[in-house]
Amino acid sequence: MESWVQVDANSDFSIYNIPFGIFKQNGRVRAGSAIGNYVIDLDQLHKRNYLDSFELPEGFFESDTLNEFINQGKEVTNALRVKIIELFSKESGELQDNKSDIESILIPMSEVEMLMPVDVPNYTDFYSSIEHATNVGTMFRDPDNALFPNWKHLPVGYHGRSSSIVVSGTPIKRPKGQTKAPDADNPTFGPTQRLDFELEMAFIVGKETILGESVSTKDTEDYIFGFVLFNDWSARDIQVWEYVPLGPFLAKNFGSSVSPWIVTLEALEQFRVETPKQDPQVLPYLQIEGKKNFDINLQVGIIPENSEEQIVSNSNFKYMYWNVNQQLAHHTVNGCNIEIGDMYASGTISGPTEDSYGSMLELAWKGTKPIKMKDGSERKFINDGDTVVMRGYAEKEGMRVGFGEVRSLILPSD
Amino acid sequence: MESWVQVDANSDFSIYNIPFGIFKQNGRVRAGSAIGNYVIDLDQLHKRNYLDSFELPEGFFESDTLNEFINQGKEVTNALRVKIIELFSKESGELQDNKSDIESILIPMSEVEMLMPVDVPNYTDFYSSIEHATNVGTMFRDPDNALFPNWKHLPVGYHGRSSSIVVSGTPIKRPKGQTKAPDADNPTFGPTQRLDFELEMAFIVGKETILGESVSTKDTEDYIFGFVLFNDWSARDIQVWEYVPLGPFLAKNFGSSVSPWIVTLEALEQFRVETPKQDPQVLPYLQIEGKKNFDINLQVGIIPENSEEQIVSNSNFKYMYWNVNQQLAHHTVNGCNIEIGDMYASGTISGPTEDSYGSMLELAWKGTKPIKMKDGSERKFINDGDTVVMRGYAEKEGMRVGFGEVRSLILPSD
Repeated sequence: MESWVQVDANSDFSIYNIPFGIFKQNGRVRAGSAIGNYVIDLDQLHKRNYLDSFELPEGFFESDTLNEFINQGKEVTNALRVKIIELFSKESGELQDNKSDIESILIPMSEVEMLMPVDVPNYTDFYSSIEHATNVGTMFRDPDNALFPNWKHLPVGYHGRSSSIVVSGTPIKRPKGQTKAPDADNPTFGPTQRLDFELEMAFIVGKETILGESVSTKDTEDYIFGFVLFNDWSARDIQVWEYVPLGPFLAKNFGSSVSPWIVTLEALEQFRVETPKQDPQVLPYLQIEGKKNFDINLQVGIIPENSEEQIVSNSNFKYMYWNVNQQLAHHTVNGCNIEIGDMYASGTISGPTEDSYGSMLELAWKGTKPIKMKDGSERKFINDGDTVVMRGYAEKEGMRVGFGEVRSLILPSD
Repeated sequence: MESWVQVDANSDFSIYNIPFGIFKQNGRVRAGSAIGNYVIDLDQLHKRNYLDSFELPEGFFESDTLNEFINQGKEVTNALRVKIIELFSKESGELQDNKSDIESILIPMSEVEMLMPVDVPNYTDFYSSIEHATNVGTMFRDPDNALFPNWKHLPVGYHGRSSSIVVSGTPIKRPKGQTKAPDADNPTFGPTQRLDFELEMAFIVGKETILGESVSTKDTEDYIFGFVLFNDWSARDIQVWEYVPLGPFLAKNFGSSVSPWIVTLEALEQFRVETPKQDPQVLPYLQIEGKKNFDINLQVGIIPENSEEQIVSNSNFKYMYWNVNQQLAHHTVNGCNIEIGDMYASGTISGPTEDSYGSMLELAWKGTKPIKMKDGSERKFINDGDTVVMRGYAEKEGMRVGFGEVRSLILPSD
């Protein structure tokens, strides 16, 4: 399939993708999709009657979140995505032949600012990469017993902070907090000395449940609208002092960054792969059938101030030990209700090789193997003035579906 | 001060209280206050021109949450509370003399259903009672080192689940989940065998911050709108298996129950007491001046099916080692932003004596000291069909300000 819009071969936004997001142009906020280097203005598409079959209210896409759109259900959102694919495919003249409409509907990406795509009622962070959990356990505990006893029996997760999830482009201020050196008697207060990224992906809930209801692994995909890249910023020195016994808190909740385009589950259909073998066998409520992982290439780069980008990690979403279906089935098995816009992040995605780890903690192995930047400087963690960029895309048989990027500049503490 | 409405001496809703809540009557939802056995219909008070000086939009109180009301700021909400106190005091004839208005404005509590008072963007649970933390540490770890090294240096907290916070009267279904017996090789799946309450109070945020901003202990009270009773339901057997290393998750997020009336910080002014001495001294950002604890009597009762209530705990909010100012200063010290309606719960409030513990885990000491019910049955934890009731009130020099109750029936797993 080809589009009449010119799309570069390495564009994340081919006609196979058609993601959803919220953008601002000339001070006006509305919902859009993307193709090549253009934002597709869904409000204009609607106003100019290309979406009449959906019977959406006037001004439906003049919204600052996608929650109400997602709330229409997959029947509507999937059909709308298919309609957009049709409108932009070479075979259709419906939009292609209306030059004046095209000018209003296609906006160069350089002219818009992307905003948070959804309001996030609740955010949960899992810990589902076996390589990451093993690395952390090896570094901080015991290489021979790196995983805790529960790790292979359930997708470990914890609640995070939804208020501080921000979109790509939002600077992150280095947080202050309490830390305690191992040999010190008392903690001290100041800016974190161990600011780290965590390369993650998150899925966004597209269908709510009521309190007391569970979702079986057979049905979980009905509840998943799509995915974004997720950078779970972490302050390692704050974390190590605060997290026993109730888990990470201020080490995480100063900010998490997401990519602005939600790539739908349906756009990732072609890129399914098997989940790694799970041994021991999981309990029945966590068992799955079919291909439930996704082959998505992931990359992290660091751009020091006034320097060039150094790629520090090449990983892949396919490595996840626990898949999104298991995460959602587990999350709801006790009756916990989910809401539209909820984000469920994967946990740091580390691969099997040293260059595929998803955090500086692992890449520089607790500071013992600093990473060289292009300007000759070294990094054990992230410096003020550094920009961290994460990218992700799936590719197969000439089809490319990507996420764009999540990019964040680190500002000093004030 | 006295009201022209008859208020019993033991009523939680004296003229000194004037809390805020959301209620439903004849299918219509709106905001209200309370006096004696009556709900004060704020929508009627507004429509009948008693609140004209506030210049609120038409239908302002026809809302299903208090968030927008709280968003008006303390200048408005405090003045409105003072206005209501005036209207209902014996000295004022303004409302007292208008019998027909009174009939529309005062609704017997028995005729209304109370709803969730706010939409809760984020919920955090602290762990701020030294008696509770010591009890748990003694039971599960080491009596000589019951508190973790960080406990006296920072108010330990973790993120909870806001979607499953429900109002008093909402039944709670016994959750299912994974548990593992200490001597078993593998976990099993089924209904929790150790369902527990946690007696807590929560404060509700009344003023937002932006990401990167901190609130000093000098200013924290400007950000606190009021308080509710909070039952942090817990499944102890699920908790013990899942919570290492990232904290409680499914053991908590199946439901938390709150009392429907938000008692304002201002209504509690008379009941301030000193915070217990903190030794070692806390870091400067956690230091406070003045009386920052509140003397609020708390009570928990269990009503077995077809039986009478047995009071199982008498505790007090004044025991908290960490106060709400310190909790909020700590929560924002790293720049984490707070939002209107956020709930910050205290953690289980246990007192120094065995009958003042705030959970069955402690009251029945890990099942070793079962609690007798009035029907002769015993409880180590909570049974299906049990109703758990928590109550709270402050009282001093003839002034009584109370919270009403949070009451929940436990339904069996399905």
